[in-house]
Amino acid sequence: MLSQEVLNELIKILGKENVLTSKEDMITYSFDATADMPSQEPDVVVTPDTKEQVVAVVKLANKYQIPLITRGSGTNLSGGTIPIKKGIVLSMLKLDKIVEIDAENLTARVQPGLVIQRLNEAVASYGLIYPPDPGTVTTATMGGSVSECSGGLRGLKYGVTKDYVMGLEVVMANGDVIRTGGKTVKNVSGYDLTKLFTGAEGTLGIITEITVKLIPAPKYRRSMLAIFDNLDKAGKTIADIISNQVIPATLEIMDNVTIRTVENYAKVGLPTDAEAVLILEVDGSIEQVVVNEFNTVQKICKENGAVDIKLAQSDAERDGIFAARRAALPALAQVKPTTVLEDATVPRSKIPEMLKALKNIAKKYNLQIGTFGHAGDGNLHPTILTDESDKEEMERVHKAVDEIFKVAIELGGTLSGEHGIGMAKAKYMEWEFGQEGIAVMQKIKDALDPDHILNPGKMFGGN
Amino acid sequence: MLSQEVLNELIKILGKENVLTSKEDMITYSFDATADMPSQEPDVVVTPDTKEQVVAVVKLANKYQIPLITRGSGTNLSGGTIPIKKGIVLSMLKLDKIVEIDAENLTARVQPGLVIQRLNEAVASYGLIYPPDPGTVTTATMGGSVSECSGGLRGLKYGVTKDYVMGLEVVMANGDVIRTGGKTVKNVSGYDLTKLFTGAEGTLGIITEITVKLIPAPKYRRSMLAIFDNLDKAGKTIADIISNQVIPATLEIMDNVTIRTVENYAKVGLPTDAEAVLILEVDGSIEQVVVNEFNTVQKICKENGAVDIKLAQSDAERDGIFAARRAALPALAQVKPTTVLEDATVPRSKIPEMLKALKNIAKKYNLQIGTFGHAGDGNLHPTILTDESDKEEMERVHKAVDEIFKVAIELGGTLSGEHGIGMAKAKYMEWEFGQEGIAVMQKIKDALDPDHILNPGKMFGGN
Repeated sequence: MLSQEVLNELIKILGKENVLTSKEDMITYSFDATADMPSQEPDVVVTPDTKEQVVAVVKLANKYQIPLITRGSGTNLSGGTIPIKKGIVLSMLKLDKIVEIDAENLTARVQPGLVIQRLNEAVASYGLIYPPDPGTVTTATMGGSVSECSGGLRGLKYGVTKDYVMGLEVVMANGDVIRTGGKTVKNVSGYDLTKLFTGAEGTLGIITEITVKLIPAPKYRRSMLAIFDNLDKAGKTIADIISNQVIPATLEIMDNVTIRTVENYAKVGLPTDAEAVLILEVDGSIEQVVVNEFNTVQKICKENGAVDIKLAQSDAERDGIFAARRAALPALAQVKPTTVLEDATVPRSKIPEMLKALKNIAKKYNLQIGTFGHAGDGNLHPTILTDESDKEEMERVHKAVDEIFKVAIELGGTLSGEHGIGMAKAKYMEWEFGQEGIAVMQKIKDALDPDHILNPGKMFGGN
Repeated sequence: MLSQEVLNELIKILGKENVLTSKEDMITYSFDATADMPSQEPDVVVTPDTKEQVVAVVKLANKYQIPLITRGSGTNLSGGTIPIKKGIVLSMLKLDKIVEIDAENLTARVQPGLVIQRLNEAVASYGLIYPPDPGTVTTATMGGSVSECSGGLRGLKYGVTKDYVMGLEVVMANGDVIRTGGKTVKNVSGYDLTKLFTGAEGTLGIITEITVKLIPAPKYRRSMLAIFDNLDKAGKTIADIISNQVIPATLEIMDNVTIRTVENYAKVGLPTDAEAVLILEVDGSIEQVVVNEFNTVQKICKENGAVDIKLAQSDAERDGIFAARRAALPALAQVKPTTVLEDATVPRSKIPEMLKALKNIAKKYNLQIGTFGHAGDGNLHPTILTDESDKEEMERVHKAVDEIFKVAIELGGTLSGEHGIGMAKAKYMEWEFGQEGIAVMQKIKDALDPDHILNPGKMFGGN
């Protein structure tokens, strides 16, 4: 509970309208999009209009040693924005301007509260795109997606958020404002702080401005849905496409559980007896190249025994295929009260092994696991359909999750391809980095935020 | 001067043959490829055969608080490997193995002493390349180029070293060995330590293994040399090529001083009255695309008033064009005893302004400045031809260098596109980052190397 003195200071800094304290608001900000996480109401939520207000709030939090949790739209999937130690939630949604579009240098400068999709709408008239597209692209903010280093459906060909962040303005825990990186394509001046803050989950500083790289929009694309009666065949298809040196813009997989659920939910005409479907899109600037790549992909699917291939003949058909994929999570989410969405990521050659392991884990713990995701880049989303109120089943869920991450690490993978560590995976960090690796990260945290004011309880757990 | 006790311990760790103390050796390791820098002999040079020896040396340096300077081939251009505080030079040249080539996942794992070119020779049979190619690719090591985050001639299209480093094994200042990143394309697990150590100039840890991304080798390429009677026209050509959304693999510029010097040195048939030449290469996997892009580039050169365009009709002609560009530095270096090679980098739209500024600076300080470099990505190499023994001229050189960096920063650029900070640019860091930005970097340094054992006197100057 904050003292009236602190609240008065906040009101002085931000104005009454930017300081929220009602019970309803506290509940609203007590959770994010992550399932199976404890919720916690903050002491207060502030919604600054200016960078200067952010700096003043940071200085105040510092003075009174109050936890500060920076938040965008709260769409993150690892418990990163839950105010688990209470304190001040700093909502960046009002800092949502596009500061500059520099078409000559293919860059944009934006505030952190900007919704990703709005940037893409703004740069479309220049023939440019900002490629990172997490599933929540229409609601997630630039600040949140930079802090979590979001991936998305185009990661295989176009990379993830960190590949597009060129520079940042950051408010440090002590209130200092620094600038990192910039508009130059090449930059090796000092330590790469831009990449350090990207994906740091708001634990090292508060991002107040972002410079991103834009790229020319691909002019042509071709999409298809390939259906397999066997997971292995789908897995081998993925490997063969890459080793034929075709890099599709999208190469997504859905397993049988997901297919059946999506079909039941959205009636998009998916074959419910298929073991796996692949959703494939190639794109580029030259029509003939795109057509050639598309033909190669189709040939590889056939050679690997695809039982059917549906080619999108129109934008509407293409949208239908993608709608099926985008429906995966909402469809799975309505099967049972609780959807534990994981983020296991392995080197792409290990995808078939990982898919097999997931099937075995589902069987071993008698759980319903739907798996879908970005197979082309090794980033799968095994999704456990369960019910938080069923204590016995949740125990099995937790064991299954442990085992999923254990296998991912054993296969040379990582705890998180795109959802981050947050609260959800802090306990697994040692498996990936050892005590020595975690110690290095903690030393950096201690150096930049000695009093652990910024998003405490995340990344390393504890404080 | 190290005590005999320390030397004995080093011999015990490494064997007598791996501990160098002769005067000749100390002189050899007292400088690197950077001009106009103080030289300093180390106390001892060690050449470990194994990672375990590296760890033991680090622990010893830690115990006795001896500076430790990690070194590859010493080709760096910012004084990064000069043992300015004396101590132990740790030469990594014997740790030069390719540990693994994983063609399925398009990765390679190598030791830091491996020469870059050897990696490319080894992956060629898989149809793969490791794109970063600094001018010294035939001598520079992987460890050195990761620590400096080297760029090179293909940066515009293919990016720089950090875009290819996926994972590292690092020995920390306290002797702990950690692993960062890995083989997964997507990875947001914990802080991005991989990118932090890349370009850290050996000041935060000692790299003992590197996992890099490989890409399919482009199958086709077309090259040309375009000649301009006016720098502005060349500058506008660069901007027009990019805004036409053609991204050449190489887009290099040489100014008149460089052209004349190269021609005098190498007799490659360059027009000595030209104000500027552009060296352009487009490449790709599909011949027709490469041809189309090549035609577009040619058309843009003509539209901008190129007085002549030489198309490479054979590999030999192509090699001739590139030999001219690669001769730029050695040619300039033989004009006068001292070659001060700088690394000013600006957003690419500012290239014409930067070129004009460089001309004015040369005039103002009555200096001979040849400028060449990677114009396509804004990374220029203004090269001052001078004589260290001429004190009065060197004063003007230092003023000119100050002004070059001042202009680069004012134009939204950076102190270093690819050569790093080292000793040469430490004094300019505040211009780019302010005291607050430097403070953040220093906190990270202090956290990971509290006793400043690792490459002291670099990046921030002082200790």
